[in-house]
Amino acid sequence: MSASLDVPAASSRPGIPWVPAADLIERYPAIRAATRALTDPLEIEDYGLQSMTEASPAKWHLAHTTWFFETFVLARESDHVPFHPRYGYLFNSYYETVGRMHSRPKRGLLTRPTVADVQRYRDHVDHAMNRLLGEGPSPELTAVIEVGLHHEQQHQELILTDLKHGLSCNPLRPVYRELPAPTEGEASPLTWLEHPGGLMEIGHQGESFGFDNEFPRHRTYLRSFALGSRLTTCGEYLEFMADGGYQRSDLWLSAGWDVVQREGWQAPLYWEREGDDPDAPWQCFTLGGMRPVHPAEPVCHVSLYEADAFARWRGCRLPTEAEWEVACAPRPLHGNFVERSAFHPVALRQARGPGPHQTFGDVWEWTASAYGPYPGFRPLGGSLAEYNGKFMCNQLVLRGGSCATPASHARATYRNFFPPEARWQFSGIRLARDP
Amino acid sequence: MSASLDVPAASSRPGIPWVPAADLIERYPAIRAATRALTDPLEIEDYGLQSMTEASPAKWHLAHTTWFFETFVLARESDHVPFHPRYGYLFNSYYETVGRMHSRPKRGLLTRPTVADVQRYRDHVDHAMNRLLGEGPSPELTAVIEVGLHHEQQHQELILTDLKHGLSCNPLRPVYRELPAPTEGEASPLTWLEHPGGLMEIGHQGESFGFDNEFPRHRTYLRSFALGSRLTTCGEYLEFMADGGYQRSDLWLSAGWDVVQREGWQAPLYWEREGDDPDAPWQCFTLGGMRPVHPAEPVCHVSLYEADAFARWRGCRLPTEAEWEVACAPRPLHGNFVERSAFHPVALRQARGPGPHQTFGDVWEWTASAYGPYPGFRPLGGSLAEYNGKFMCNQLVLRGGSCATPASHARATYRNFFPPEARWQFSGIRLARDP
Amino acid sequence: MSASLDVPAASSRPGIPWVPAADLIERYPAIRAATRALTDPLEIEDYGLQSMTEASPAKWHLAHTTWFFETFVLARESDHVPFHPRYGYLFNSYYETVGRMHSRPKRGLLTRPTVADVQRYRDHVDHAMNRLLGEGPSPELTAVIEVGLHHEQQHQELILTDLKHGLSCNPLRPVYRELPAPTEGEASPLTWLEHPGGLMEIGHQGESFGFDNEFPRHRTYLRSFALGSRLTTCGEYLEFMADGGYQRSDLWLSAGWDVVQREGWQAPLYWEREGDDPDAPWQCFTLGGMRPVHPAEPVCHVSLYEADAFARWRGCRLPTEAEWEVACAPRPLHGNFVERSAFHPVALRQARGPGPHQTFGDVWEWTASAYGPYPGFRPLGGSLAEYNGKFMCNQLVLRGGSCATPASHARATYRNFFPPEARWQFSGIRLARDP
Amino acid sequence: MSASLDVPAASSRPGIPWVPAADLIERYPAIRAATRALTDPLEIEDYGLQSMTEASPAKWHLAHTTWFFETFVLARESDHVPFHPRYGYLFNSYYETVGRMHSRPKRGLLTRPTVADVQRYRDHVDHAMNRLLGEGPSPELTAVIEVGLHHEQQHQELILTDLKHGLSCNPLRPVYRELPAPTEGEASPLTWLEHPGGLMEIGHQGESFGFDNEFPRHRTYLRSFALGSRLTTCGEYLEFMADGGYQRSDLWLSAGWDVVQREGWQAPLYWEREGDDPDAPWQCFTLGGMRPVHPAEPVCHVSLYEADAFARWRGCRLPTEAEWEVACAPRPLHGNFVERSAFHPVALRQARGPGPHQTFGDVWEWTASAYGPYPGFRPLGGSLAEYNGKFMCNQLVLRGGSCATPASHARATYRNFFPPEARWQFSGIRLARDP
Repeated sequence: MSASLDVPAASSRPGIPWVPAADLIERYPAIRAATRALTDPLEIEDYGLQSMTEASPAKWHLAHTTWFFETFVLARESDHVPFHPRYGYLFNSYYETVGRMHSRPKRGLLTRPTVADVQRYRDHVDHAMNRLLGEGPSPELTAVIEVGLHHEQQHQELILTDLKHGLSCNPLRPVYRELPAPTEGEASPLTWLEHPGGLMEIGHQGESFGFDNEFPRHRTYLRSFALGSRLTTCGEYLEFMADGGYQRSDLWLSAGWDVVQREGWQAPLYWEREGDDPDAPWQCFTLGGMRPVHPAEPVCHVSLYEADAFARWRGCRLPTEAEWEVACAPRPLHGNFVERSAFHPVALRQARGPGPHQTFGDVWEWTASAYGPYPGFRPLGGSLAEYNGKFMCNQLVLRGGSCATPASHARATYRNFFPPEARWQFSGIRLARDP
Repeated sequence: MSASLDVPAASSRPGIPWVPAADLIERYPAIRAATRALTDPLEIEDYGLQSMTEASPAKWHLAHTTWFFETFVLARESDHVPFHPRYGYLFNSYYETVGRMHSRPKRGLLTRPTVADVQRYRDHVDHAMNRLLGEGPSPELTAVIEVGLHHEQQHQELILTDLKHGLSCNPLRPVYRELPAPTEGEASPLTWLEHPGGLMEIGHQGESFGFDNEFPRHRTYLRSFALGSRLTTCGEYLEFMADGGYQRSDLWLSAGWDVVQREGWQAPLYWEREGDDPDAPWQCFTLGGMRPVHPAEPVCHVSLYEADAFARWRGCRLPTEAEWEVACAPRPLHGNFVERSAFHPVALRQARGPGPHQTFGDVWEWTASAYGPYPGFRPLGGSLAEYNGKFMCNQLVLRGGSCATPASHARATYRNFFPPEARWQFSGIRLARDP
Repeated sequence: MSASLDVPAASSRPGIPWVPAADLIERYPAIRAATRALTDPLEIEDYGLQSMTEASPAKWHLAHTTWFFETFVLARESDHVPFHPRYGYLFNSYYETVGRMHSRPKRGLLTRPTVADVQRYRDHVDHAMNRLLGEGPSPELTAVIEVGLHHEQQHQELILTDLKHGLSCNPLRPVYRELPAPTEGEASPLTWLEHPGGLMEIGHQGESFGFDNEFPRHRTYLRSFALGSRLTTCGEYLEFMADGGYQRSDLWLSAGWDVVQREGWQAPLYWEREGDDPDAPWQCFTLGGMRPVHPAEPVCHVSLYEADAFARWRGCRLPTEAEWEVACAPRPLHGNFVERSAFHPVALRQARGPGPHQTFGDVWEWTASAYGPYPGFRPLGGSLAEYNGKFMCNQLVLRGGSCATPASHARATYRNFFPPEARWQFSGIRLARDP
Repeated sequence: MSASLDVPAASSRPGIPWVPAADLIERYPAIRAATRALTDPLEIEDYGLQSMTEASPAKWHLAHTTWFFETFVLARESDHVPFHPRYGYLFNSYYETVGRMHSRPKRGLLTRPTVADVQRYRDHVDHAMNRLLGEGPSPELTAVIEVGLHHEQQHQELILTDLKHGLSCNPLRPVYRELPAPTEGEASPLTWLEHPGGLMEIGHQGESFGFDNEFPRHRTYLRSFALGSRLTTCGEYLEFMADGGYQRSDLWLSAGWDVVQREGWQAPLYWEREGDDPDAPWQCFTLGGMRPVHPAEPVCHVSLYEADAFARWRGCRLPTEAEWEVACAPRPLHGNFVERSAFHPVALRQARGPGPHQTFGDVWEWTASAYGPYPGFRPLGGSLAEYNGKFMCNQLVLRGGSCATPASHARATYRNFFPPEARWQFSGIRLARDP
């Protein structure tokens, strides 16, 4: 195991475009504990559940995030002894330059190490990390640890989305945690916020941590546009469905229409009707079990294809990521994040001010932008070059964060990305249009 | 849920071709306890492991065998309340006439019910069954319970073979139970036992339980033949491999050669060489972990295709099931069954008498006979008609039982059956030839 | 290219179990010309059509049968120069011992050689063969040529069945040749012919040509049975369909039910209703284009699974191949063979005598017998060992010949074989039952 | 059949962003004849060849382009009688709003209509079109005819690329047409052309025809960049291969590395070595048959993944489509187009002036730009809305045209697009980098 950020050793800002934080000694244990807390409601049996290739077992997430610190931080010390000689093979996700790895679709077959074994692995690595943090790591290591903490937060979200998918495959529809009852009432009306466009700047300025894909901050020219004041609701989406949305090929991207036909999509993921009865009301599976679909809540678990078809049906379009960023960056970084324990998007009942509202938290918002490098993009050095850049093909950018995102992980420049058919994330729709 | 054996109610031998036993009240708890004992070495995480469609999780086996008694015995009482309204859906295996069922390849996704839930289910049903057995069930129910106990024993074997496959997929190569060390020395020499053939009888006589596929006993005409005195050893199989057995298309059935090419077979299942080094000695995965291949032990985990190719290479053939039965039926019903806890076939060091030896236990012996109905075959009535008959296509008969078979489950007329490419059972080779 | 029958050179019956014929010099050109005549109605475009892996283009059949003579007869002469250096690769079907071969599913991509090229190939080989026949070939070569002619006749039937499948995939439903109009009226009633069973003999006696799989003639013990006097009609099959035959799992072998579900089978192959309207009458595609389904005609293009399910629905079963042979061998070898140019099975309007009727020609009759070696089976030597024996797994025997079979190719001992799901042959149903 | 451009009827520029041409009456027959001329070297058998889902038979292209005029032009007249009632079903490509269509992967099974039938179809439609053009069509129809001619030219290119793929699957490696011998000598040295960037304009101005995806012309901000003076050569690509290009995961996009592993890519499409001998020189299949790889010629038949990996290996990147357009738009619209009958890219031996050279013709140049709508994009109305917009997902833009492109079809603003793994087009590499 050898991995390197490939940065100059002695610098307060070692070859990275952002300023490392000084509070790792507090944040490391807090973030690690938050991960563990998310798995508290699980039965031992649930930890190994893998319901599709794209989703991983909770146990694997617990171990992989630990492996990240062991491999990219602790293993740089010459006298490091791996906790277990095979864990590097088992818990590497996709870092080809670090070595071979276990087959991704077979993560669910790893009944060993047990949950208790993995907890011992976490404790062991945390002990060493805390000691290192107490000693004061080098600037280079500090940067890697910062990456590792944000990496851990990404996996916190995946623990919830992957688990939701897994539990949904069980006819017993198990409950992860009881959710608060949704408040009654209608959604605040949708209005349009106009933006004049012009030569704008987007991207991260580097005052604090950002992933390599958010850099460099750069100019981009925008035409004037209008952005929807809030997220699309289930009620609006039900109108699309009632108007034959899933039956009209003219509304869909060609690749999307293929998926609709092949998979028999008729509604967002997790929506179902009792006994498949077309007259029964729509229910949806949540982390709190089955619930009625609430018209005022933001629609969720839609693919890019569904978001795009809905927008076309409404005579609108999806925003580009640049439009989203220039319009939403001024908004306060508040929202329905994972710390609220809603585990589901929440209706906007009373909008205060013109908005845009619900920009952060609730659901990731699909944009029309293919995920690619910003002009002048430079990946992290060493093995961490594999972190983001190699996925810049056939994926779309999502913005804003969701009800499963840690609040401290969200920011206006954050670029999430998924393939256009992905539905198991908390992904939703904000409309845009030409003025 | 409604299911029936469809037999006349008042008879000491109610429409079935065998004599029901009088000792169910002792055998029921003993056999149920034996199932549970097989899972004692498991971690909670192991119970849900499903590594391929053909294999089921141990937890599922525990629940399905319980469902069998609940559905086909307890549910006949008018006031029966199912233990859980969805368990009928979750734990039906393939009884289409009883109702819809959970998708077989997704049994491993059922993290709920938990292991503890399933144990409660077993306890609940056992309680009701013991009460019923104390009251003295009708002849018809007695017959179904007898079927249920033999069904349970079939799943005891599957628990071990499915688990072995699942654990083998883990790079950590976990140990189920430490196995006894193999004794040293060479295998007893192979000799040939000649049989004159003629108009013979095979099939079950009905003095005790037999599955419907073993009936009726009937005449069949056999030419003279010779049967190998013992099982084929790993040493003999290594000679086949060294002689290019897996590279010579002329030795193989066409469908077998396709599998060899497609799957890249080079050795029996579970055999591997350290680092895939062609000069390293062969190891094999066992329920006791990795071990060297011992030349004197019977070769195991071969498909019908491999057994057939090996036989052709030796200028021999596989026996038909009729040949096997007439030659082996006189032998005592002793052997390396699961009760010995060897969990692996054992070498024949010193043969006493001419044999045939190793006829019962150690490994199931592939025959050249396609699995089909005996002349005059009549399936069980009601839903249990689905037990055997509907699988009589594209499968081959195996005889004799294995090191994972309960001793009281084996008999000379027993017809096991698997598709020709199956390798995860303890399946091996006995040669035959024309004299 | 080297291939050998591996038989003693000087003998009037060179190691083969049948007596070679003396009339090859007449039969060779006649059979070769019959092949060519079958392709006369084709457009140039049709010759390359391959609609599934199991079916081959007519052009390929024309070339492959020629390759057989070139490879196994002409190439034995030391000074033989192949007609084209790559044709051995292109037109080998499955003889692994002769060399590598072109991928079977890609035969339809071979637009070159052209039809004219292949005709030149045929002419070239025929010229050399006729010369050899005039010179008087050795007994060994005589035997191989005899095999080659029967091989050619097998491919005559495949030209028609493969072409029918290919044309059926064209929404224009092209006509191969106009068929005679079916005569009106009802089918002769079905009666039952009882047979006492006992120790019988089946298999070829060797008085003339037979394939290796028909030998040796041997004893087999049969219980008494009854055989249906004629083939199952479309009218009878429509009753099965009307009674929910394709919806009732209890009627089907498990593997058959899987196919019904997966493929959405609702009727025999080539049956359809205008616009998929459930109230429209059934039509079927024939070599003469679309036609109404005639109730009196034998049902055709059913799989073993459908034949078996139909028999179970009728409270009957399929005959074994031994039952079929002992009951039908005494019947005259007449029937609706390809020479009648009906290209479709014909109704039995007026039965003369007790029957069994329609035993030869019309449709291949599925039996309950898995295709395997007769006791004492010995394959042909050399490369022709691959002719039959290596397919003895996962296939079922069919008997009697069809409306696409040359009359001189049929005989009572002939064992045709196909996988149980195959439907594109002219395959139908004759019932049997226990008396 | 009803289809409409949905534009105001009376206007010299009917709702479309470009000026219709006045010379259709000459260009229609010329372009139609050019299509036919491309198929002159074919055998009848070749016309039906379909070697993969993405490729269509030449016969299908001939009929589909005809269907386009019949459906979108002729069928608007109230008294139009379709040439054949099923051709609309057979030859619709992907216009869901026009009606159902034949399965794309099964186009190769349509042996009927024959080549002669399709030629009659072309003649019939051409006759009606020529009459209409003589009468002077409405502005709206004029616009549709203009689209139809450019559509026809697109299929001219596909006839060649699809045929090349089909012929390459034939072990005989047939020759489409003898190609001119490549001239000897080395390629002109690669130099770098710097561009200062700034607020630029790209897109079509509408002075003549352009596809909807080229509009509207719009502003975009570019950083300074440098563009390679010529295309990447085979010699340069061989260096990449020799340096382990296909073995080093760090050079590849993640999805590209998956394809490399899954498909076993080791070289561009159509490259092979005699007998797969690693010491043999590379050959490549061309429309003139097998030829040595010439180091000075532009590398061709690479995917976006290979282009991207090569660029990374060279420390460069691919240009964006905006960079390409601003740098290349000033260049004269000359190049190695299909009219030169080279049917293969040609080496740049002596560059005149700084370049960029080889911008038009030779090979389509992969860009780093995902194919999406320009800001303010409006699709054509009616069914032609399906022409371009619905493919704006998971595809990348290519620029410049190839040796299979008609010269009058190329222009600096033209946006071709293919999925990143596509290799059967004449697609190559031009490098870019940050200065």
